[in-house]
Parts: sequence; C-alpha cells; structure tokens
Amino acid sequence: MVFANYLQVVQHCDSVTYNKDQQGIPFQLEDGTVVGTLLPRVVTALITYNNTMTPSPFLISGTHVQFNTHVTNMVERTQEVATLMTQWRKDKVFPALAGWRDELYAVYGPGGVPAFVMERAATPLFGISTFGVHINVFGRDQDTIKMWVARRSLTKQTWPGLLDNCVAGGIPYTYSTKETVIKECDEEASIPASIAAHAKSTGAVSYYTMSEHGLQPETEYVYDLELPTDCQPTPKDGEVECFYFWTLDQVKDSILKGDWKPNCALVAIDFMIRHGHITPDNEPDFIDIMYHLHRKLEFPSPKKTLEIKHQP
Amino acid sequence: MVFANYLQVVQHCDSVTYNKDQQGIPFQLEDGTVVGTLLPRVVTALITYNNTMTPSPFLISGTHVQFNTHVTNMVERTQEVATLMTQWRKDKVFPALAGWRDELYAVYGPGGVPAFVMERAATPLFGISTFGVHINVFGRDQDTIKMWVARRSLTKQTWPGLLDNCVAGGIPYTYSTKETVIKECDEEASIPASIAAHAKSTGAVSYYTMSEHGLQPETEYVYDLELPTDCQPTPKDGEVECFYFWTLDQVKDSILKGDWKPNCALVAIDFMIRHGHITPDNEPDFIDIMYHLHRKLEFPSPKKTLEIKHQP
Repeated sequence: MVFANYLQVVQHCDSVTYNKDQQGIPFQLEDGTVVGTLLPRVVTALITYNNTMTPSPFLISGTHVQFNTHVTNMVERTQEVATLMTQWRKDKVFPALAGWRDELYAVYGPGGVPAFVMERAATPLFGISTFGVHINVFGRDQDTIKMWVARRSLTKQTWPGLLDNCVAGGIPYTYSTKETVIKECDEEASIPASIAAHAKSTGAVSYYTMSEHGLQPETEYVYDLELPTDCQPTPKDGEVECFYFWTLDQVKDSILKGDWKPNCALVAIDFMIRHGHITPDNEPDFIDIMYHLHRKLEFPSPKKTLEIKHQP
Repeated sequence: MVFANYLQVVQHCDSVTYNKDQQGIPFQLEDGTVVGTLLPRVVTALITYNNTMTPSPFLISGTHVQFNTHVTNMVERTQEVATLMTQWRKDKVFPALAGWRDELYAVYGPGGVPAFVMERAATPLFGISTFGVHINVFGRDQDTIKMWVARRSLTKQTWPGLLDNCVAGGIPYTYSTKETVIKECDEEASIPASIAAHAKSTGAVSYYTMSEHGLQPETEYVYDLELPTDCQPTPKDGEVECFYFWTLDQVKDSILKGDWKPNCALVAIDFMIRHGHITPDNEPDFIDIMYHLHRKLEFPSPKKTLEIKHQP
C-alpha cells in the first residue's frame, strides 16, 4: 500500500475508530474494569463455546462479557482463558491461533496489577492491550544520522519480508522493559549486552490497530541505541533476513512506499520527529501525527516497576 | 502546591475532564466545526452583550454558540470578536482581559486555515486552542546533562517568580515555529540567532488546562537546544529574573515541590522522558504521564506550513 503522506501511514496503523460505541463488546472484570474488546464474530464463537461448558465460564450480555461469578482470582481466570483458547486452537476457529507462540502476556487490571495471563497469539481475539519494546538502532556517517533497518524474514508468519525496526519484541510476563531490550538486542541482532545496556528510553508509542487477527491496542516502549562505528547488527535467530544502514531520507521513502510493517513505521516516524527530521515547519499534519503516535488507550496499563530478575 | 509524583504534576496541568459533555458550551463556525468552548459565566455575559447589539453578532442556544448569519468571513469574524473583547475589557467583565497583550492569535478552522484572529489574552474566554514554542536549553557538565531553567520575573503578570523553560513564547500569527524559536531565544535569553538556529524540533506537548482565566487547550512545539560551553543564557527583555544551570535531579525535585509554572513542568518532564531520565522501569505511571503530555485536542490545528518571512 502506497501512502500519500505520513498522516495516512499513522492512520493506517491507528485504525480503530475513536467512537467507543463502534469498537465492539467490552470484556470486563467483575469490578467493571474494561480490559479488552470482542468483535461480533468472537462473541458468537464464545456463546457457542460457553453453552458446551458446565458451569459456563463466561457471562455474556448484549452490552459486555465477563467471567462467570465462580471465576474469581488470577489462577482461575488464567485457566479458563487457556482452556478456551486451547479448544479454539484445536478446532481451528480463528486463524490468529495458528500463530501460537507459547508466550504469556499479562492482562492488567485495576491498579495496573495483572488480572490474568494469556497466550500472546490469543490477545487480539479479546482485544487485550499489549506492551512491547522497539529499539531504533542508529549510527552516524560523519555527522549524519543513519538508521539500521531490519528486513523481516521471508518465512516469518506475520508480515514476512517487510521492513522493521532493528530490534523489537513483546515484553514477556515478569520481564522489565530494559531486560527485554537487552534480550532482544542479542536474539534479533547479535548486539552484545555491554552495548545494548546503553539503549536510552525515549518514551512510548501507542495505537489501536485492527488486523486480520482482531483488535490490538498496543503500547511500544521506544528506545534509541547509537552503535559505535565498529559495531553492526547481525541476524541471529532467523527472524531477520538482513539489515540495511539507511539515511533518514531512505527511511522516509520506504515508509511512504508501504514497505514497513505498519506499527514499526510509527516508531520510525517518532524517531524522525524526536530527531528533528519531521518538524512542524515541514510537515502540515504534524499535530495529528503526534496524536496517532500517542493514542490514549482506555485500558489499564502496568503500574508496578518490576524488580530486575533476568540478567543477560 | 507540593506533588506526590509526576502523574499529579501532569494531571494538575491537563486538568479539563475528558468528558465532552461537562466541558462547557461549544463555540462553532457556521459549518459546525467546533473551535472553542465557553464556560457558563462567559455564556451569561455574552447573552447580555448580544442583547445590546443590533444585529446581534452571535447566535446563542442551549447547545452551542456561533456567529450570526451576517458574519460570514475572516474579517467580519475578527471584527466582531475584537469589538466584544474591547467592550469587555473596558467594562472589566473578566480579569483575563487585564492582561491584554496586543498580540493576535489565529483561530484555526476547517483544513487548518485561520477562520479569524483574536487578542491572545481573550483566548481562554472562548476556550480557543493556542500554539506556542518551548525550548529546553541544556548543556553538559562532562557527560552529564544539565538544564538551563528560568526564574520568571517577579513582576510578570502571570505566574511571577515561578520556574520556567529557558525560552518559550506564543506563535504570533504569520510566524513559523522555527522563526518564533529564534525570536524568543534572542528576546528572552540573549541567545544569538547563529546558535538558536541549531535548536532541534523534537515533537509537541499538548494538554487542556483550566486556569483562573478560563479554558486553555494548548499545544507547545518542543525544541531542544544544546549550548556550547562558552555560551549561557542572559535575561534581556525583563521577563526572566535569572537562569539556573541545574542537574536533572534538581529539576525533578523542583517540579515535585510545585516551583514550576504548570505547563512548563510538562515540557521539562517530556525532556526527561526523551533523554532517558524518566523511564518505564523507574516511573510506575509512565504510560499515563505520556497520555497527559499528548492530550488529543478536539479542535482544528494549523495545517499549512508557513513561508519563512521573518528573518531575525
């Protein structure tokens, strides 16, 4: 998909309507905290599943879905959702579950405390808010910033062959963001921990995207990592085909050509805004772009800073 | 006002409810584009004024306020608002107008084109969305970033004696943002244009604040300017009492103590987020803070990049 401007690029990713009434059926906890959203096709499948189970694990009304009253704590919620998703995966009800990753994501409830955890591939079915890290890895050619851009593996299940931020990954349950950064720098780009530790937190990009798999409210913590001239990223775990070392003009052209995985284009645009390459004087949609990079998601987010437990 | 944490700081500034129905009466153009909001006390005064004029310049209903049908273009809208505000200023109807500045701000309509212009001091009465520049001026003490912080003049009409970003100012009608940056660097801090020209655009901070003067949806374009070691800001136009060269820990402490003008604290917090001093691992409210720094304002914003006309 070719874009006429950057506003189209960010709107293509932050694509879910701002009108709450049109987003789907809220999935809520017993205290009314909304933690996700179900599209009509998911509600239909959930009604069918619910009718086969005694007692029914969910309460489903025309206005919302929640756990049944006998499901009251984190372990029970986690178990009910795991049983459901395992059944749907077995029955091939939703293509999203073909990408099963055996990776647990936290679903945050009141106070930013995890209410339960669930398989990552299942989160779009319940429209769960997820959190990841994206790292802009860059260097300098004399005084000019150049960015390391990843080409995703042609065999990757999602978005094969598209361009990506140099390093990115979901935050597994119990990892801090910086630990995730260091882990992913190693796994995806062979960047040693001694260098990755210099990655600088610079903010977050948030958006609400609709994909073939469902509803994805996502927050990506953004880091910048400047590599010394004698260091360059190298593919390691098979997720990346190759890396390019591009000027920001090359990055901009490739974004407008639609060569990027949509959410990664947002992270690259945020980088170019923060580094003065997209400015209010050269970009007429500057403010609207800022809004789409920082969509306010109406779900709880993690509040507790985690102890650092995973030393690389 | 002492704050317990940075979330309180940003909420203190981005203080207007997200519930549109509770914000006030929309002020709209003839095509329905909402360009501002009137608090009940302003509506009451406007009804009184409107009744003294023939023909009445405004149409006032229980749901919205707009120009009367004979007011159809930019010149006429500008004139009607100027006549109104001049009258209110003369009659001392609102304290906001005691701070009359003889500075015109654009009120943007459909397509980001100015629908009319109005006196800066009057914008909170109509809840007009305004645009300014704030420049984080910083230096380094060896490898440590230190920030130049301004103490506002004790005789300034608004927020006397509070801390402020080193340089800041509203964008006058017909100025580009970068021109405004260069103009304000000179006027407020005696920073020569040759150095100010290196200020780097890094994004924008937006918030919706309620002050004693009314409703202020504001967008501040944010610039970073690193000063060479032999350069330091010096007060010039009497708006600044003095400048401090502070570590970011000193900046953080002073923000929590409530020593800052509220919106300037947001700009400083944005700086510390972008420079890796406030991170998702050390700040439990990181995401909520990001939202308040990037409030989506439901008013048109400038879309046209302006020709550079004002060379310093």
